[in-house]
Amino acid sequence: MAYPKLHRGIVLGMAALLATNAGAAAAQKKTEKELPPKPSVGDVLKASKAADWRPLDPENTLYLELPAGRVVIELAPAFAPNHAKNIKALARERYYDGLAIIRSQDNFVVQWGDPHEDDDKVRKVKDAQKTLPAEFTVPLSNDKQFVRMRDVDGFAPQIGHSNGFPVGRDPKAGQTWLTHCYGMVGVARGNESDSGGGTSLYVVTGQAPRQLDRNITVVGRVVAGMPLLSTLPRGPAPMGFYDKPELQVPIAAVKVAADVPDAERTHLEVMRTDSATYQAVLDAQRNRGGPWNKVSPNYLDLCNAQIPVREQKP
Amino acid sequence: MAYPKLHRGIVLGMAALLATNAGAAAAQKKTEKELPPKPSVGDVLKASKAADWRPLDPENTLYLELPAGRVVIELAPAFAPNHAKNIKALARERYYDGLAIIRSQDNFVVQWGDPHEDDDKVRKVKDAQKTLPAEFTVPLSNDKQFVRMRDVDGFAPQIGHSNGFPVGRDPKAGQTWLTHCYGMVGVARGNESDSGGGTSLYVVTGQAPRQLDRNITVVGRVVAGMPLLSTLPRGPAPMGFYDKPELQVPIAAVKVAADVPDAERTHLEVMRTDSATYQAVLDAQRNRGGPWNKVSPNYLDLCNAQIPVREQKP
Repeated sequence: MAYPKLHRGIVLGMAALLATNAGAAAAQKKTEKELPPKPSVGDVLKASKAADWRPLDPENTLYLELPAGRVVIELAPAFAPNHAKNIKALARERYYDGLAIIRSQDNFVVQWGDPHEDDDKVRKVKDAQKTLPAEFTVPLSNDKQFVRMRDVDGFAPQIGHSNGFPVGRDPKAGQTWLTHCYGMVGVARGNESDSGGGTSLYVVTGQAPRQLDRNITVVGRVVAGMPLLSTLPRGPAPMGFYDKPELQVPIAAVKVAADVPDAERTHLEVMRTDSATYQAVLDAQRNRGGPWNKVSPNYLDLCNAQIPVREQKP
Repeated sequence: MAYPKLHRGIVLGMAALLATNAGAAAAQKKTEKELPPKPSVGDVLKASKAADWRPLDPENTLYLELPAGRVVIELAPAFAPNHAKNIKALARERYYDGLAIIRSQDNFVVQWGDPHEDDDKVRKVKDAQKTLPAEFTVPLSNDKQFVRMRDVDGFAPQIGHSNGFPVGRDPKAGQTWLTHCYGMVGVARGNESDSGGGTSLYVVTGQAPRQLDRNITVVGRVVAGMPLLSTLPRGPAPMGFYDKPELQVPIAAVKVAADVPDAERTHLEVMRTDSATYQAVLDAQRNRGGPWNKVSPNYLDLCNAQIPVREQKP
């Protein structure tokens, strides 16, 4: 398997190629068609400039502190202004501290919230709101930074990225929304559109459940720490719920990064999705070069489009 | 959260709805548009008949025996006849027994094989083949059971299912192939197309890496036990490799089910994807009913199309 010799992934979450080095020393067959080599995502990132990146805004960054470490979530106030505000209010009144991860369903979501929601130990919301009107979509005018992808999509007339988030939009309806890609964070709700408010949140851990798009308020994206969530044992109860308290994963705290001393923050930066460099990142995935690749799809699925994140340079 | 009251998933791998019961007792707002209720996947499965299901063929079923339990893999000889045959030969000469899971990359794949491939403790292949010519695609005539989905797809001119497997096809090129959806199993290789043979296999554990379609030989699908693979700790080395032997997960054995006494087999059946019932399963996902759903995409992503599996009725 010779790991040290393998082509290496470079950034967090990079989906590198499968490889073994079996036969790697053998000469390429002359009869085999070759795709010309071209820059990989890693090559594009190496060549990126400081201006291609933006630091996370501490006022719109959450730290979900788990026993195993920190999950960093970037909120998207342009797409869910009221929910983003309310979730920060919940964090600041320490609503989440001591609650738990209550669900992990294979190939779908991990969800956290109050395990006592229906008994007399229920955690009370103080100054924040328990529920809010839905923000399943927002007007196109909310979003100033959309850059469209040319790739066809079955769920939305247009797709692309806005300020580091995957987005669908319907110009005729005048609507835009965040899409349910891996790592996206949404607001659990009951049957009524306005029955959620952020007291229970979920993160996508499986094949993008895009049927949830425009059916639920999406508030942000996990930018670091996904493995702390994606590897959690699947819950034995229906829908992956942890039906016994001892299965639940305690939440030490959810904090707004701005409230955390600078020395204790996780300093990350996200590639600017309205940069030319990001277009090159997309193209490096849409059409990959040889020698490993033999055919190229000339297509990129929105939810496979990497949104690079890296440690901020000091 | 009230788990007992939640809408329940029914089959392995079912992607059930997100729900909390917050406000569930509140009357539905009259101003809110309602989608009419319609049968869910669970409803369709409940109404299915025995003839809608087929048992796994023991001669084309593998058991990957791990310390935590058994992973059941269905081979697809129609799509990779030589590789399926070779992998069974490898299993029968006990090539895999004592090897290990050597890689888990978040949102991508888990891979197993010989950790000693490049040193003098390398496991020798006896009567099976170490490498084989690629079977990235096969002629359309190999596949007699294709049923097309009407949904647009960016990676293939046509998509659908054949005998329980997700499939892409290109009628002009006369080619058909298995697609890289969650749980699909493929043959790791080096740069040369013919540098794999099944000594190292991988399973998709993240957002479908469809760019690998037609670039690598796909041999089958995990039909039970995915959580044993999907929750494995992500490897710390580039591409998720376990760079220390103590991180590797030992493989007790890979067995062909036909070689296992009946009492020790896992008796499963898969929904026939050429049945009318399966078309109803697809439609239940393409258009979901109220009251939880507010908008319906009238679209189904190939890799979100469930392929139901259940325990065989005795």
